[in-house]
Amino acid sequence: MPETMLAIVKAEAKPGAEFREVPVPKIGLTDVLVKVKVASVCGTDLHIYNWDAWAQNRIHPPLIPGHEFCGHVAAVGAEVTAVKEGDFVSAEMHVACGKCLQCRTGEAHICQKVKIIGVDANGAFAEYVCIPESNIWKLDPEIPQEYASILDPLGNAVHTVLAGEIAAKSVAISGCGPIGLFAIAVAKACGAAQVFAMEVNDFRRKIAQQMKADYVLDPATQDVKQIVRDATNGVGVDVLLEMSGHPDAIHLGFGIMRSGGRASLLGIPSKPVQFDLASEIIFKAAVVQGINGRLMYKTWYQMTALLKAGKLDLHPVITDRMPLKDFSKGMERLRTGEASKILLYPNGSK
Amino acid sequence: MPETMLAIVKAEAKPGAEFREVPVPKIGLTDVLVKVKVASVCGTDLHIYNWDAWAQNRIHPPLIPGHEFCGHVAAVGAEVTAVKEGDFVSAEMHVACGKCLQCRTGEAHICQKVKIIGVDANGAFAEYVCIPESNIWKLDPEIPQEYASILDPLGNAVHTVLAGEIAAKSVAISGCGPIGLFAIAVAKACGAAQVFAMEVNDFRRKIAQQMKADYVLDPATQDVKQIVRDATNGVGVDVLLEMSGHPDAIHLGFGIMRSGGRASLLGIPSKPVQFDLASEIIFKAAVVQGINGRLMYKTWYQMTALLKAGKLDLHPVITDRMPLKDFSKGMERLRTGEASKILLYPNGSK
Amino acid sequence: MPETMLAIVKAEAKPGAEFREVPVPKIGLTDVLVKVKVASVCGTDLHIYNWDAWAQNRIHPPLIPGHEFCGHVAAVGAEVTAVKEGDFVSAEMHVACGKCLQCRTGEAHICQKVKIIGVDANGAFAEYVCIPESNIWKLDPEIPQEYASILDPLGNAVHTVLAGEIAAKSVAISGCGPIGLFAIAVAKACGAAQVFAMEVNDFRRKIAQQMKADYVLDPATQDVKQIVRDATNGVGVDVLLEMSGHPDAIHLGFGIMRSGGRASLLGIPSKPVQFDLASEIIFKAAVVQGINGRLMYKTWYQMTALLKAGKLDLHPVITDRMPLKDFSKGMERLRTGEASKILLYPNGSK
Amino acid sequence: MPETMLAIVKAEAKPGAEFREVPVPKIGLTDVLVKVKVASVCGTDLHIYNWDAWAQNRIHPPLIPGHEFCGHVAAVGAEVTAVKEGDFVSAEMHVACGKCLQCRTGEAHICQKVKIIGVDANGAFAEYVCIPESNIWKLDPEIPQEYASILDPLGNAVHTVLAGEIAAKSVAISGCGPIGLFAIAVAKACGAAQVFAMEVNDFRRKIAQQMKADYVLDPATQDVKQIVRDATNGVGVDVLLEMSGHPDAIHLGFGIMRSGGRASLLGIPSKPVQFDLASEIIFKAAVVQGINGRLMYKTWYQMTALLKAGKLDLHPVITDRMPLKDFSKGMERLRTGEASKILLYPNGSK
Repeated sequence: MPETMLAIVKAEAKPGAEFREVPVPKIGLTDVLVKVKVASVCGTDLHIYNWDAWAQNRIHPPLIPGHEFCGHVAAVGAEVTAVKEGDFVSAEMHVACGKCLQCRTGEAHICQKVKIIGVDANGAFAEYVCIPESNIWKLDPEIPQEYASILDPLGNAVHTVLAGEIAAKSVAISGCGPIGLFAIAVAKACGAAQVFAMEVNDFRRKIAQQMKADYVLDPATQDVKQIVRDATNGVGVDVLLEMSGHPDAIHLGFGIMRSGGRASLLGIPSKPVQFDLASEIIFKAAVVQGINGRLMYKTWYQMTALLKAGKLDLHPVITDRMPLKDFSKGMERLRTGEASKILLYPNGSK
Repeated sequence: MPETMLAIVKAEAKPGAEFREVPVPKIGLTDVLVKVKVASVCGTDLHIYNWDAWAQNRIHPPLIPGHEFCGHVAAVGAEVTAVKEGDFVSAEMHVACGKCLQCRTGEAHICQKVKIIGVDANGAFAEYVCIPESNIWKLDPEIPQEYASILDPLGNAVHTVLAGEIAAKSVAISGCGPIGLFAIAVAKACGAAQVFAMEVNDFRRKIAQQMKADYVLDPATQDVKQIVRDATNGVGVDVLLEMSGHPDAIHLGFGIMRSGGRASLLGIPSKPVQFDLASEIIFKAAVVQGINGRLMYKTWYQMTALLKAGKLDLHPVITDRMPLKDFSKGMERLRTGEASKILLYPNGSK
Repeated sequence: MPETMLAIVKAEAKPGAEFREVPVPKIGLTDVLVKVKVASVCGTDLHIYNWDAWAQNRIHPPLIPGHEFCGHVAAVGAEVTAVKEGDFVSAEMHVACGKCLQCRTGEAHICQKVKIIGVDANGAFAEYVCIPESNIWKLDPEIPQEYASILDPLGNAVHTVLAGEIAAKSVAISGCGPIGLFAIAVAKACGAAQVFAMEVNDFRRKIAQQMKADYVLDPATQDVKQIVRDATNGVGVDVLLEMSGHPDAIHLGFGIMRSGGRASLLGIPSKPVQFDLASEIIFKAAVVQGINGRLMYKTWYQMTALLKAGKLDLHPVITDRMPLKDFSKGMERLRTGEASKILLYPNGSK
Repeated sequence: MPETMLAIVKAEAKPGAEFREVPVPKIGLTDVLVKVKVASVCGTDLHIYNWDAWAQNRIHPPLIPGHEFCGHVAAVGAEVTAVKEGDFVSAEMHVACGKCLQCRTGEAHICQKVKIIGVDANGAFAEYVCIPESNIWKLDPEIPQEYASILDPLGNAVHTVLAGEIAAKSVAISGCGPIGLFAIAVAKACGAAQVFAMEVNDFRRKIAQQMKADYVLDPATQDVKQIVRDATNGVGVDVLLEMSGHPDAIHLGFGIMRSGGRASLLGIPSKPVQFDLASEIIFKAAVVQGINGRLMYKTWYQMTALLKAGKLDLHPVITDRMPLKDFSKGMERLRTGEASKILLYPNGSK
């Protein structure tokens, strides 16, 4: 085991990041050291890179970001039994306390004291990352390896889609970043009868087409309300999956949702949003769900099962592959909207 | 059967109402004519009386308002089999179309074409009212007769409380109008472990005390957040029942609700409300439910069962009893906040 | 409209049936007369034909059987508004009373006073059948017409599959009669990750293969327990859909179901079945559901949505098409196990 | 800390047990040593004492039985943070592996590798017991101390009652051992409208009266079906809680349950039970749930909340209090049906 490794480091409280040598993490009795094969980039990483208001409030440099990855176990603590050296693994990066009400009642994903590896502790944009055994997910050899680093955002999509009935439903997906795009595939694989993908960005809409949404709509230029009304016998969609966080998209989404519908909200608005509670939620008897993370670990079992069964084709979402050292180039491509999901290779090969 | 009867009539598109002679309603083959024993007053009736923006948009005078009542069957159409002359009855006043998606999937309470008797058609502030057989609710002889006219708002409360888990839960009820007050009794009867009633009006808070809320709090003068935090081991309440429609109360409610909590919204705000979706709903993984009406007719069975079992003491909410002709006096007492639930007696005796 | 029509008639309390001339049914104010295009045969019809113990107890000859069909509206009663002459329709044949607890709480499919057309009243093995407007299902023009007569048994399958979570689940389907075969297609369309079809009859197993079950197993010759164990990491299936009614199959099914699994029982055993409640249900914390009919009408909306979306290929199940007059030949083919779903054409063309 | 302690020991593979000196348990890094204040007796302990077929198959002497208790923390392992010396605690005695599918999806109560302290490892019929930190339940100072040792069986009752809707429901409880008796109190506290307690033993029926069941019925001498029918408008009960394990009681229970009802099975029959699946489950669309243990740890939070709120009066069930050394006398009183819940005091005082 080397003493040092190369990593992306948010070294200071300002925009940007460095690629530099740092010590390989030390592991404790119940920890697992993973040699990272692939790490992928989340919108959160762009917030950290850009050093926006959220990042300034949450991040304490120096920090190695990165919370989507896969790799092989390089070493295990003395008490670890779940995996052994050489195992191919990913991990849930929300580390729950295990002792609060939520943790003890099956809702560890909303633990009162959650710490996120890659946000609150050093993450996976490095040659090695340290993960507690409780959070390691041993990868089934039958799932496609090219998807192994994107289970975190795929898990967001699976959790959102399966947070209520989906089979035989008409579904609007608002916002086609990677999670929205994954949600198209998941919804269709789980029996959604009609999927309406809504997105103003051309590049993303093209990918939504490749993901086989039944309708790919541009709210900026198309009369989405009329199209949905016509396609649903005037009733509206049963389910709204809100992935955009944009106020206009949110209101459009609630507007096309039928009375008694489900709205699952994942996209984070940058500021408060005005609701007409009476017409958008109350008289409609809508069920609105806040979606945070993934279920620990029901969602991971669901993902594994769907991937093993070959039910998800996620390739169109992976637009870029590059060595870890080119991280800043990736950030730039995300910023300009030219990339969707970017895979990084810290250990040279890709 | 007389030809005419006395009724409250919203005769013109302006504030106020008249007490005057009108024809007794004609009934069709599947209708039931009920001689009204008691009719009670809802906040909606005050909106109609005051002729506010909502009323101007929805009501088409002339109209006999009134959608909470009980009485005896005076006559039945030729095809009616569910009740007979003399039966003591109340009714669900939301008349559903029976043919839309919602009606055919067990959600008639959010029928796409619902008509409300007393809002869209002549109601119960009269000596007689005409009700379709489908909507008649024959009253079990064992339920207390003094509650027979208030099943509509009690049903709102029962539907709201039982829209999710309630046993062993801590529950905040925001707003103590009649429905909020009923909800205190229902929540406690159904096993709620702690009920926090929140209300700025002194008169209503006094009734909340009589309804045996565990905590009766005045958000204008008390540190509700701290009190709830102390009483819930720092966790917050499991359930928020929002009955006020006031933005401050709504935000206070979401603020004291724990991650993973349920917020059931019944109170109608008079204008749009700003939400910080990220902190109030999404990161909390909150479940927010719009509550409209009562389930047709599950809620009616639930009310009957709870009332027969003697589990609900609702007397403190009934503050006024008066002849129907004194309707305007009742409106005045509601407007000044001196009354909670007012019972009207159209047929002289009370 | 002719005065008479040809129909299959169970004329006497003994095995067999006649093909003969009978009066065209008279319709009431709220009835619909349908000219039958296709009627299909259910196992129930074979019980009636064979005049077994169940039939002797339930059926009162003379009776026209047949409860699966489609056709065009030939005439409507004066109060009918849902359909008009010429509309292409099918129907839910469970006629609910509309007034019992179950009917008034969204569970009309288990109405206390249900009457089944084709069992308790004259059915669809005839040129015309009379259906109450409430039970007519107007067929969406986009659903494949070849499936229009088999919505009743497809509805059994959809209701069974969707009676709990199915996406990403491993599912055992025990018994591959038409409903079990349909369930394979429905489960896979709704995201089931693994479908194990179990059936002792070779002919049926071949169709199960065509329906694309992931595993098609013969319990008579294969070690199903071991195969399932190996394919589920030793855990067992998440869901058991019991369609056989055979005691051996039932116990095998419960034996391969994991702790915390769901068992949905549709197949009717011919006599009592012994259960080891402790090991088969209680310690497993199993959830066992009795499945009766289809939800009225949620299941019909679900079927329509899945069929419109092209998610179900049901062709392999339809093995025979014949004129109605050849009914007895069809019975014989069912009895010998040479046929699966048989379509009958009462009006000459097929 | 003493080296030895007094304990009840199942020393050999035969009926009976010894009261003798044994070593005080050694604790590991994550264990808690509890000085037992009260331990209570479960039917399982009688099986072990009697050395019946179940015991012969499951128990490996020598064993200290006892899985219901409370006490004060006497010592903690070096890594324990949840409790400290002197804390008043009870514990969940099902020790889950934490790594199987069920454990990782919120169903640790049906862990594939569960070990039960007091059954598979030394338990609480001793002056001291060793418990893993994960399973310790720190007792809220506001819950009545006299109930602190019976949370395990109270948890069975709470889990059973709250495994489905209970508010406003009619509920039959079949079998009035301690868990059935607790279930009466819990059901009524959680809004059950009618509770029918059914029990053939006179002594137990008297306690059921004290627990305030609405109807206390003796199936051996009363026409339970007729009584339930009359009391439920001919419909039957909504919920059956099966606590007896006796075939006659099971069939009576299913017989009085309405279509669409819930049957939660906790009582363990001593041998297989015949079911008429068609009439008892399938046509009824019954939901049958196997109930095992208590939810870890949702049920514990629910119990705490109900007890703190003063909603449960459980005193009538506690019939005997005696020093631990009189254990065999307690066994005898259970065997003859003269006792319900027996509390044992290992540390002298009671």
